[in-house]
Amino acid sequence: MNAPSSTAQLQPEAHQRAVPAALIEALKARFGERCSTALAVREQHGRDESAYTTVPPPAAVVFAEGTAEVAEAVRLASQHAVPVIPYGVGSSLEGHLLAIEGGISVDVSRMNKILSVNAEDLTVTVQPGVTRKQLNDEIKSTGLFFPIDPGADASLGGMCATRASGTNAVRYGTMRENVLALEVVTASGEVIRTGTRAKKSSAGYDLTRLFVGSEGTLGVMTEITLKLYPLPEAISAAVCSFPSIEAAVRTTIQIIQMGVPIARVELIDANTVRAVNAHSKLSLREEAMLLMEFHGSPAGVQEQAETVQEIAAEFGGQAFEWASTPEERTRLWNARHMAYFAGLQSRPGCRAITTDACVPISQLATAVVESVAEVEASGIPYFMVGHVGDGNFHMGYLIDPDSASERAQAEQLNHQLVQRALRLGGTCTGEHGVGLHKMGFLVDEAGVGAVEMMRTIKRALDPQNIMNPGKIFSL
Amino acid sequence: MNAPSSTAQLQPEAHQRAVPAALIEALKARFGERCSTALAVREQHGRDESAYTTVPPPAAVVFAEGTAEVAEAVRLASQHAVPVIPYGVGSSLEGHLLAIEGGISVDVSRMNKILSVNAEDLTVTVQPGVTRKQLNDEIKSTGLFFPIDPGADASLGGMCATRASGTNAVRYGTMRENVLALEVVTASGEVIRTGTRAKKSSAGYDLTRLFVGSEGTLGVMTEITLKLYPLPEAISAAVCSFPSIEAAVRTTIQIIQMGVPIARVELIDANTVRAVNAHSKLSLREEAMLLMEFHGSPAGVQEQAETVQEIAAEFGGQAFEWASTPEERTRLWNARHMAYFAGLQSRPGCRAITTDACVPISQLATAVVESVAEVEASGIPYFMVGHVGDGNFHMGYLIDPDSASERAQAEQLNHQLVQRALRLGGTCTGEHGVGLHKMGFLVDEAGVGAVEMMRTIKRALDPQNIMNPGKIFSL
Repeated sequence: MNAPSSTAQLQPEAHQRAVPAALIEALKARFGERCSTALAVREQHGRDESAYTTVPPPAAVVFAEGTAEVAEAVRLASQHAVPVIPYGVGSSLEGHLLAIEGGISVDVSRMNKILSVNAEDLTVTVQPGVTRKQLNDEIKSTGLFFPIDPGADASLGGMCATRASGTNAVRYGTMRENVLALEVVTASGEVIRTGTRAKKSSAGYDLTRLFVGSEGTLGVMTEITLKLYPLPEAISAAVCSFPSIEAAVRTTIQIIQMGVPIARVELIDANTVRAVNAHSKLSLREEAMLLMEFHGSPAGVQEQAETVQEIAAEFGGQAFEWASTPEERTRLWNARHMAYFAGLQSRPGCRAITTDACVPISQLATAVVESVAEVEASGIPYFMVGHVGDGNFHMGYLIDPDSASERAQAEQLNHQLVQRALRLGGTCTGEHGVGLHKMGFLVDEAGVGAVEMMRTIKRALDPQNIMNPGKIFSL
Repeated sequence: MNAPSSTAQLQPEAHQRAVPAALIEALKARFGERCSTALAVREQHGRDESAYTTVPPPAAVVFAEGTAEVAEAVRLASQHAVPVIPYGVGSSLEGHLLAIEGGISVDVSRMNKILSVNAEDLTVTVQPGVTRKQLNDEIKSTGLFFPIDPGADASLGGMCATRASGTNAVRYGTMRENVLALEVVTASGEVIRTGTRAKKSSAGYDLTRLFVGSEGTLGVMTEITLKLYPLPEAISAAVCSFPSIEAAVRTTIQIIQMGVPIARVELIDANTVRAVNAHSKLSLREEAMLLMEFHGSPAGVQEQAETVQEIAAEFGGQAFEWASTPEERTRLWNARHMAYFAGLQSRPGCRAITTDACVPISQLATAVVESVAEVEASGIPYFMVGHVGDGNFHMGYLIDPDSASERAQAEQLNHQLVQRALRLGGTCTGEHGVGLHKMGFLVDEAGVGAVEMMRTIKRALDPQNIMNPGKIFSL
């Protein structure tokens, strides 16, 4: 493990490549008003939900309406060796959308059609601008659902790009497990397909999973085939308060080790409960809390719930409250999904530096308890939420964006937290991606040789380095 | 979809590269008796379970006893630009082990240690020569198991290389879903690690899944970290006979579409039942049959079994027979795992040309019924088994290896079966890999552009093309 290097990327320096006027003219000629150079549009596309200060925005934004248009935009950019940054809804937390080397943004949010639902096969094919909520709304009548739910109502293209997960991953897996096939525009503007609708395959290199998690650096995804799941016959959700974060974490560990097929098990700390209560007008008990959900047959759900209540009781869990109507459940999970924004609002004007470590479940209590002790000692306001069934937790350090010292302090806390997670056999990022922020951590985690292999693949597939350059690793 | 090209690879022509005497001397100097040039040893390492006629065997076999030794062997081969073919137990069905461009075999079967069991995290790290049965024997006391079970007692390295699956994949996934991390010796002899023991990660390109299914063409896997599962509290297995293959398939489709978490659902046709009865001294009813297994709590297993019995009854399923003791279950599943060899023995002296298509579940009845009609019309003896819960089925065409016309006829049947699977949205290989046999089918399935992307990755990571050359695609 090397010396800290992540803080070097904290304020990404702009190494802007020239965007020739000829490219802008060609894009305007092809796309008309759907190629915008308006400052407001460019600025909106040059930032995301991360805590980065702005770098110069992209030189133009192309609103693509289909695969052929994405391919044309990429081919034009390729002719001029100009960077292309794919854009969905802008919910990245890691600076993925910043035009740190200049270039153009290709906005796929208008590619928001569900192309085909194969209910009998439990699959759906969508365009990349479809958001997770839109997908579930539109397939409601089929009796199926798509479980992956990052906090934001992210686009499915963005979720593929970051290998996203969320609260249901403990049972249903992440985007890694739930993408069957892709259509991709490569860095040269060619259109290829990866995978089929078959549930499994041994047909050559797993290009699907090479693109899932590639953060826009290898191409633009233009069609995505996903697994769906039958809506469970019975669903039951509950909250349970614990005397300490550690007690909640130990309860989770035991649930997982016993093989209970729990659908969701989320930890929020007392700070977050307070913020969520204020934001969503709830009256949850302001202690560390697990939010849980059980899916299955009525008898199966009851059995799981009983097992979990027994485990929780051993660790001092109390006030098990059940949300059994769909409305109560929706309210509860919306509150959970608003935790990030509720946390932000708890310190007006702040920005959050968000950690994303994920560790083997046996190490989770150590990882969480030591990290909480450190932030408590620092005095930096924070909140903590966790997809703890997967060993993944987020600390949000709430900093004054104008305070260099708070920022440095938060980065130091993040650094210590990540190095701890790596020592414990974990990863620096469970679901947000590397982006700009974790490039140093990636080297610490994967080693120089593995990162060099990633670079070799990138150079081979994108020799001009035009696809979202400067993310994941520097070239 | 292009014209048939797979038959062109039926008799792989040997384009042997020179293996300099200096390399053999260097290997003998380094490995002593563990570098063998004895003809019998070389011949054993130059073939597998496929129906290929022999090409010249590798020039030498190195029995490696650790990562450093694999790395040394690869570095020596690399210095002389000589091919390296990793070898586990030789159970490939697709010609993966044939030295079609010459070179040396690196046998990792002595690297058969379980390096660490992390029972609390449900993970294990093994050397690549550990076989699936050995793994389950050695971890028995932990209360955990590893579910992936191709027919052969394959090495876990080989199972990673082919992205193997088997009878439990319908519930537990394939090697794609169950490998957490790898240690790999690259084509230049460097040692890298991919992944961590964290259950999920968004840390850069998914190198783990690039290597899983790469069939030895990108490097040699030297350590493998796998997911384990708690042994179910209750297990129940059953066989059920059906009036037709179609009825059995339609039962399966409905089980999957209803979301029943069945652990195994295997189809064997009447020919296979006859062969298995003869081979394993069983008295199963000689009709199309589903073999099923249910995992869960006692109540959960009962609930699943009741649902499945109701579905089976709708399609004329009868004679539901339960195997509830561990001994009965073992006998049943051993018989299923012996189906391939039982099939072979049903025509003495034959070789099997085995298909491996996998289709979306809604298309399974079409795929199976039409393929059975074709082979029946051809007069070629055959058997059929299927991991039908995943839409994957195998026809074994039992040919006289000395009959060119039978071979050509079987290849034509295979060709028609694969093209049908592709038309239905499926894949040419669900679990055996491409090897030598399906290189043409891979192009039909993935398209020229995607295969060219695989080649680009291969050239970048193995510029001398020394890692198992001539498999998956030609360069």
